[in-house]
Parts: sequence; structure tokens; C-alpha cells
Amino acid sequence: MSAGTDIHALAPARGQLKLRSVGVSGIRKPLTVHRRGATHTLAVTFEVAVDLPSDRKGSDLSRNAEILAEIVDETATRPAESLENACSSIAAELLRRHAYASEASVRASAEYFLRQGVSESKRSFEDYTLLAEARATRAAGGAVALARAVGAEAVGMTACPCAMETCRERLLREYPRLDDPSLRDLPMITHNQRNRTRLVFELDGGGEVEAEEVIAAIEAAQSSPTYAILKRGDEAQVVLAAHRNPKFVEDVLRDLLASLPGRFPRLEDAVAVRASTVSEESIHKYNVEASHRVTFGELRRPAGR
Amino acid sequence: MSAGTDIHALAPARGQLKLRSVGVSGIRKPLTVHRRGATHTLAVTFEVAVDLPSDRKGSDLSRNAEILAEIVDETATRPAESLENACSSIAAELLRRHAYASEASVRASAEYFLRQGVSESKRSFEDYTLLAEARATRAAGGAVALARAVGAEAVGMTACPCAMETCRERLLREYPRLDDPSLRDLPMITHNQRNRTRLVFELDGGGEVEAEEVIAAIEAAQSSPTYAILKRGDEAQVVLAAHRNPKFVEDVLRDLLASLPGRFPRLEDAVAVRASTVSEESIHKYNVEASHRVTFGELRRPAGR
Amino acid sequence: MSAGTDIHALAPARGQLKLRSVGVSGIRKPLTVHRRGATHTLAVTFEVAVDLPSDRKGSDLSRNAEILAEIVDETATRPAESLENACSSIAAELLRRHAYASEASVRASAEYFLRQGVSESKRSFEDYTLLAEARATRAAGGAVALARAVGAEAVGMTACPCAMETCRERLLREYPRLDDPSLRDLPMITHNQRNRTRLVFELDGGGEVEAEEVIAAIEAAQSSPTYAILKRGDEAQVVLAAHRNPKFVEDVLRDLLASLPGRFPRLEDAVAVRASTVSEESIHKYNVEASHRVTFGELRRPAGR
Amino acid sequence: MSAGTDIHALAPARGQLKLRSVGVSGIRKPLTVHRRGATHTLAVTFEVAVDLPSDRKGSDLSRNAEILAEIVDETATRPAESLENACSSIAAELLRRHAYASEASVRASAEYFLRQGVSESKRSFEDYTLLAEARATRAAGGAVALARAVGAEAVGMTACPCAMETCRERLLREYPRLDDPSLRDLPMITHNQRNRTRLVFELDGGGEVEAEEVIAAIEAAQSSPTYAILKRGDEAQVVLAAHRNPKFVEDVLRDLLASLPGRFPRLEDAVAVRASTVSEESIHKYNVEASHRVTFGELRRPAGR
Repeated sequence: MSAGTDIHALAPARGQLKLRSVGVSGIRKPLTVHRRGATHTLAVTFEVAVDLPSDRKGSDLSRNAEILAEIVDETATRPAESLENACSSIAAELLRRHAYASEASVRASAEYFLRQGVSESKRSFEDYTLLAEARATRAAGGAVALARAVGAEAVGMTACPCAMETCRERLLREYPRLDDPSLRDLPMITHNQRNRTRLVFELDGGGEVEAEEVIAAIEAAQSSPTYAILKRGDEAQVVLAAHRNPKFVEDVLRDLLASLPGRFPRLEDAVAVRASTVSEESIHKYNVEASHRVTFGELRRPAGR
Repeated sequence: MSAGTDIHALAPARGQLKLRSVGVSGIRKPLTVHRRGATHTLAVTFEVAVDLPSDRKGSDLSRNAEILAEIVDETATRPAESLENACSSIAAELLRRHAYASEASVRASAEYFLRQGVSESKRSFEDYTLLAEARATRAAGGAVALARAVGAEAVGMTACPCAMETCRERLLREYPRLDDPSLRDLPMITHNQRNRTRLVFELDGGGEVEAEEVIAAIEAAQSSPTYAILKRGDEAQVVLAAHRNPKFVEDVLRDLLASLPGRFPRLEDAVAVRASTVSEESIHKYNVEASHRVTFGELRRPAGR
Repeated sequence: MSAGTDIHALAPARGQLKLRSVGVSGIRKPLTVHRRGATHTLAVTFEVAVDLPSDRKGSDLSRNAEILAEIVDETATRPAESLENACSSIAAELLRRHAYASEASVRASAEYFLRQGVSESKRSFEDYTLLAEARATRAAGGAVALARAVGAEAVGMTACPCAMETCRERLLREYPRLDDPSLRDLPMITHNQRNRTRLVFELDGGGEVEAEEVIAAIEAAQSSPTYAILKRGDEAQVVLAAHRNPKFVEDVLRDLLASLPGRFPRLEDAVAVRASTVSEESIHKYNVEASHRVTFGELRRPAGR
Repeated sequence: MSAGTDIHALAPARGQLKLRSVGVSGIRKPLTVHRRGATHTLAVTFEVAVDLPSDRKGSDLSRNAEILAEIVDETATRPAESLENACSSIAAELLRRHAYASEASVRASAEYFLRQGVSESKRSFEDYTLLAEARATRAAGGAVALARAVGAEAVGMTACPCAMETCRERLLREYPRLDDPSLRDLPMITHNQRNRTRLVFELDGGGEVEAEEVIAAIEAAQSSPTYAILKRGDEAQVVLAAHRNPKFVEDVLRDLLASLPGRFPRLEDAVAVRASTVSEESIHKYNVEASHRVTFGELRRPAGR
């Protein structure tokens, strides 16, 4: 074999199959983003891939690492507008440099810090996860179609409405005085736990979503947000808020989805959202989960059952 | 509110949305399986869920745990035929006891040990992962359709064919004697690494697949299987085998898929397989991945490009 | 270099240092144990190592895998008495076959299932972690000293006593009727969460500890054990039990340690215990932890402050 | 109980034991550091704890979160000099605000990016882990003693010298021409794999260590560093470098430790280093590990065996 043979470009020995996805994962890069007047450097985990035609042995994976490096490096002097915009640039460039590919996909996640607090004076950094995806597709005539998704994950708290009700019934038998009208809405004990909720917007047709607004939507749908700094009185405030707002994972998901048309009025009907939520149950060793996918059109005009 | 109120059965307060999936995850159970003349107890991680209609606040999750416990307990005295059969029983029972649901899904994974060795006298237990899924769907007239999937993951080794070729070119310049015809097929240095490959059969229309055969197919598609016990000469044997069989992740995937019609001749054309493979690259800090999904019909009659 | 050179036995090229520990980790094996009339197969993760003298380049690691395989295989026909006994056998054998080593250590962990329930009729398998360690030391004259450790980890629930008190104070202001004497011990809302507690006995001088008793001690020290199957009334029972028994991680640890002399009266004063506990706080995104190490002698005769 | 009761300050109900460590873990914060002319924001995971006297029920954990928040927030306007200096400040402040404690400990880890490359033109960000610890101890008379540790982890590559030798012996039999003197040092095939090596300096008595120098020391001790961007010729260069520098984990550790007196000449004899290394073996499903702890004094004047 002569020097300089490109093994990737050979025909595959066996199994002349097109492959849906070939790429790299777990590649970490510091991406600089400028948004809302501030510059952040995000430590991003990328997963990038393209498809591979049946007549080519290998995908030229060193290009994936080069593209990531170039686009990330450029943000050090010219910050990206957002993680999802960087993903779109990467997806478009993947398709440009993998001439044999018809589709490129990019998935990114990064930790994100926001100053939050149970009150103004107790604000400190809370950690969240940013999520972004981009998909570039080569259409007829060489045009490239780009679809983006953007989202976030937030950890908060849920308090169980069912155990609350059965505790109430049980305590009423033990403490008849609880039947006093003035105690009717006394918040009752239940199990409560860490909840992780994730919301991703599939913005195929355009539109913008701010991470802060995604996080705000999620935290409003949990029984309560959680905070790093809680002095003694604050703990009571958060516990009380959660117990006045008990939620199944089903409630978290539906309340979150139901809030979206009001919170994101400018997104078009075709925009879809994927939502999932996990409660790390305190009374079980296992987790409870719910997930759904729905379009803004369906959220705006529910079909009934 | 009167005693005994079932909070789950109430109408949701907001967001009267059907939810695609509500269930429990990360629940661990010891399932006893009798297969090929031997009884194994598998430590299984289950994820089970049903959908939820729009007019019902919550899914009755305690039933999920009960069903799992009952079916698992029964296997202690009457072992299941297979992990996937247990999943099917669980899926059918989920649908029976969640009368409001139209679909139930079960996913299971379990560690599995097989005695393997580089030679007969060096066999010892190697660890693999079994995978099984089941989906029960309520059709018109109350009939229930069941679909199953079964698969496995095996860890082996890949050696890179591209770096092998560029090393050969480079070493030829440094060691002209390498051009000697007797050294033409001398295996050359390259990077090699741990590879995890997963293969799942979607047996919607029936058919049986043995875990041992899935594992054998995967190990045959990697550059080499790996073993716990390798004495000095054995190491050379495995290293040499891998370097005589260098593979990209693309090759692992295609060779695996191409081997399936021959290895599983009785599976029908409609059976689909999902395959994915990850090489934990030794020369990079990140991983390289490939994945595909294809039917036996497509594997038997490739469409060309 | 002649055929058959043992590279490990050469002198190191640089850095003629004794090394404290060289070995293998993450090796998984199915170990068969017979205890209390029942035979279990545990899927064990082993970590085994020996020290290495300064004049030897490498440790003969293939022996580690062989010893593990032999001892594990033997249990298939002659079950081990316990995980810690298997660890001791492995440690002794490591020292025998690594003639150059002066110390061998073995660490093992395995998932373990026990049938438990909030009531007799609702028992099902709950998952725990077994822990075992062994250390073999070569003393003067070639004698080998063996030390063992054995323990377990259990997941349960804690309810916070501090937030409970501040909630009580706050609710008293809002609901003056709560001051009624009949409501004095009404359990109040607080945050509660998943708690993981681990207890390991260092049995250097001998003594036996049953995993079931370690798990029972841990679960008695948490605010409440947790269960897979909880029907509606049972949830109230567990929630109520936890709220009548609120605990900081400090309380879990001290109550656990304080209970040990009574629960394990036959263990000698020289036996040490290591205990650690983690509460995955529901009102924070981070965890709260406590740990301690103390001897039975110190537990039996506290020194005062 | 009167309003405002501090539950933590009560006497424990049972088990009046001093506890070695009570604190928080898994708390994430963005810490701004200015070093070598550049400002970085590190996403740090902190674990902070103090001991607890026997007469006090609970540790005032909200102070831990407050201290972390204050010190981290201050770095937003006045960057810290280093992660370990921030840890020292936190440890000192923990002891100041937990008046009942005699010891405070802080552990921190953070991802860190350095521009590296196989050649100048192929530099891009590679990811590493920074490690820092601080311990504050209250001495007699109220003085506080501070000890710091600082280190890093780097992922690189090892090639096995033993399998290389047995492959050479085997190939010599198959290819007699390999015996040609001009081919004597031809690098031979072996297994190679991802290696993670960690080095931590215990700077109790002072001294400074730069993360870049720790990382450089580790990468020099592995068979080869690894890089994100490797074009075809570069792969051969890295593979060749690794095969000309084959290493057991024992060699990585000894070569690393032996290099330290030369690389860090100003550190005093009393400084200790902890080093550990893990090779994720390509020919096994398990890992191979080695670890050691030694002082600079011992490294400078080895005691012989």
C-alpha cells in the first residue's frame, strides 16, 4: 500500500451498510458565551456525529475534533451568542467538511450557575444544566437545513399529595382537634424529595428561548425551588411552600407544560417540547419518573382526552 | 375530604394533558431464570411505566412495585424462562391493573456471567450485560399486543486500522528492512482500547434469541474478546489477534450487522436490530461511537447505497 | 533478549522505590455463599493489591486474576461461608503467590437482597450493599497475620428535626389553635430525604458479624427504613414514623454507634467500627454527611467530652 | 419549646460521642482565579466539614454554605490566587464560625483546560482535573494551624512492556527476518490504554506548586500524553512515542515520583506526595492500579530496599 493511503476512504470489507451515526462523545471544551450583557465560560460536554454512506469504510473523525476546537477557540475572542448557536455552527461545519454525509448532529450539555436565593439578601450561586442540540440535513440541491433544540435541567423539591392526604386522615383519627375549622388548611406531613426536571424546546422553525426562562418555568412547576443558603427561618419558609404546593411527578410535568404558552407566547405552534421529571423518592429506594412530548399547538388547543 | 380519598383518581388541577409515560426507575430485584439446564439469579434493574389519560391526576405507582414483587417472587419457586419473558409478563400485568392505561413499557438490564477463556484451561467468569424490553399495547376490543426486545452488551478490544497504516508507512521509512517480502504482513503497532458494543433484537413478531449467541456475535465483531486470566503467552495471543483484525467502530458495527443473517437464520425479515458501539480511545481523552438500526430484511437484501 | 524473559522480575529502570499498593480493581465475579441455611450467588466487585519491593519492576498481576477465579470457582461447588471469609482466603493466597510482597489487601462489595416490608403481608426484596475487606501481612518468621472487616450499607429516610421545630414555631403563629394541649405532639412538617448509611466492623482480632444484623442496626438508626411496596395507608405509617423520629445525620451516626454495644455484645473492646452517613437533602442541591471511627471499648466506656 | 430554639445547640439525646466529621458535600460553585496573568472561572465541587463535640447535637451546616458563598462571591470581584488558597480561606473561616469545632477540612476538585497539542499548530483545549485540600486545626491558645494540599489528575496513555516482549518473542519465531540487527529496536505491538494518574502535594509547611507543572510531571511519566486533535501522521507519532516508552502502572508511578525532586527543587523534605494511577486495560474488562505516598526527603535520599 503506497504511503499516504486514506484508510477511511476505502470501501468497507464486509457489511456495505449505510450507518446512521458515527462520531465522538464525551469531548469537553470551554466555550465562551456572551448573553444578556455578561460573558460566561461554559465547560461543555459535546457529542457530535454524522451518518456514513455504505461505500465508505470510515468517518473522518479527526475533523470533528478540529471543528470543535476551531469554533470553541474562536469564542475566546468572539464569544458565541448562546450554546445552541455554537451547536448550530458546529453542525453546519460538520456537514461542510464531511462531504459524504447527509446529516450531522450535535448534542451539548454544560453546567450553569445562576444567583438565586430564598430572599434578596441570601442569594448565592445555584447550579443548573444547560442543554442544546443541533441537526444539519443536506437537502436536494445542496441546501442545508438546520434544526436546533435548547433546554435546561433544574433540581428542586416535590412533596407528595397522596401521602399528605392519608397522613391527614390518619392524624385526624389520632388528634380529633385537627377537625377544628381554623386548622382545615394546616399543611400536613408527607414525604418530600429531590426532584430533577428537564425541559427541551425543539426550535426547528426558529425562535429563541433564554435558559433563565426555562429554569424559571421548571422551578415554578416543582413544589419548591431549593437553595444553598437557608438560615433557620428560611428552611421553614421553603418547607411550608413545598407542603402548600404538593405535587406528583405527573403534576410537575402537566403544570410545567400548561405554563409554557403563557411564558413563551411568541413561540410558534410547530415548536415541540420534551419534558421529563424524576423524583428521588425519600420513602422508596427507587425513583419515580414521568415524561412527555407535545407541540405548542397541542398545548394551546388541547384535544380533550 | 372524606377518609379514603384516592388522590390519584382525581382530575388534574391544571394541564389536562395525556402523559406519555409515568412510572418507576432504578428498582432492583433478584430474578430467578432457568435456561439451558441451569438456574441463575439475576440482579435486575427495572424501569416500568404506563401512559396516563388526561382526566386522571396520578398513576397508581404502588401497583408497579407490587407487580414486580409478585412476578419476581414467583420465580423463586418457578424460575422464569428468560429475562425478556419476565418483562413480557410484567408489561401485560401492568396493563391489566392500570385499567386507564393504553400502553405499558418495561426495560430491564442485568449483569450476566459466562465462563470464557483464551484457552480451555484458562476459563473463568467474564461479565456481560443482559438487556430486555417489553411493551404491551391495548388494542381495540380490549386485546393486548405484546412486543419484546432482547439483547446484550459485551466489552472487548479494538485496534485502529488507520494508525496501524500510518505507523507502517512511518516505520518503513525508518526501517527499510521492513520492506522485505517476508515481513509484508507483520502486524504493526497502533492504538488499541476497550470497546463496549451493544446489540438489541426487536422481536415484535416473535422469535427467540439466546443471550450467549448475542454475546458471541458481538465478540466476533470486535478486534478481539478480552479475558480476566491471561498468562504471559496468552497476552501475546490476544494482542496479536487484535492487531491482525484491526477495526474502526464502523467496522465493528457493520461486521456485527452483516453476521446476523447467518447467525440467526430463523429470525423473520421484520425483526429489527439496534446496534451501538463505543471505543474508549487510548490516544484521546474522549470516546468514538457508532450506532445503527436495521431490519433483517434490509440485512438480507441490501439496497445498495 | 532471550525468549521467556519475565519483564516484571527485572529491576526498575528509574525510581527504585518500594510501592505501597499495586493491583487490579473493578473485577466482577459471581461468588456463591451459603449462610443461615440459604445459598446466594453474589455479584461481587473486587479490588485486590499487594505491595512491591524496590528491586522489582512489576507485580505479577495475572496471579491476582487467577486467585480470584480459583477461589470463586471453588465456591460454585463448595459455597463460601461469607463474603469476608472469601476475602480472607484471597488475601492469604495473594501473599503466598506474590512471594516478594509483605502485605496483601482485598476489598469487596456486592448487592444483597433481603425480604422486608412495612408489614408481614407486604414483604418484598429490598436491595442493600455488602462490604468486606481483608488484609494479610507477612510477619517475621514467615507467619501471616490476617485482619478482616465486614459491613453493609442501607438506604433509608431522615426527617430534619431543625426545620420541624422552625415550622412548628411558624405554624403556631399562623394557627394559634395548634397550641391546644391535645395537639402538643402533633408531628409537624419538615424536609425529609433519602439517606445512605454505611457501617463497617474492623474484626482484626476475630469475631463474627451477620450482614442482616448490620442492616438492622442501620435501619433502626435512620428516621425510618424505606420499602418498595407501600399502599396508601402504609405510606402514612412510614411518613408518620419518620416524623416522630426526626434525625440529623449526626443523630443517625450517634444513635447507630450507641446501639452497637447492645446489639453486638460479644465483640471485643478492640473491635473498631467505621460509620458514615449521607442525606441527599431535599431542600438543597447538595448532600449532608457525617462520619466517625471508634472502638467498642470507647463505645462501652465513653471518655466524656 | 419557646420560639427560636436552636436545635443544633441542644445536647444529643443518645450517644454523647464526639464526631470526627460533619459537613456538606457535592456543593458546586463557580470560583474565579487569577493566575499567571489569566483569569479563569472554575466550576468547583466542594466538600467541607468540621468535627463536633460530644455535648452538641448538631453542626451548624448553614454556615458552611454561607462561607462558601461569601468567599466564592468575593472572587467574582477579587479573584483568588489559586484553588488551594481559596480552600485555606474557607477552612480558616469554618473554624472561626464553628466555635465548638477543633478541626475543619475542605476538599475541592475542578475541571481545568490547558491548550496542548502534538505540535504547535494543532493545539486545542485538553481537560484535566485540579485538586485542592485544606485543613485548619485549632491549637492551644486559640492559634489556628493551616495545612494545604494541591494536585491534579491527567489522562494519558500507557503501552504494556510485558505484552510487548512476549509479542516480540512470538513474532520472532514467525518472522525470522525480525532478527536482523537493523530491526532490533523496531517497536513491537502490545496492548495500550487510557491511563488516569493523580498527584497531590501535601504542603503542610508551605511551598507553592503550579497546576501546570503537576500536569507536566504526570504527562511525562505516562507512555504518552493524549490529544484531541490528531491528524493521520500525528496518530503515528503518538502511537510510536508510546510504544518506545512502554510502562506498567508501577513504572508510571515510580518515574513520576523519581522526577519530582528535579522538577520541584524548592519543596522541602517534609513535603509529602500522594500518587495513584489507573490503567483502563484494553485486554481486560477490569483496571490495573498502583498508589504510593512518600516524602520529598525519602525521594531525595532513598533508603534502599
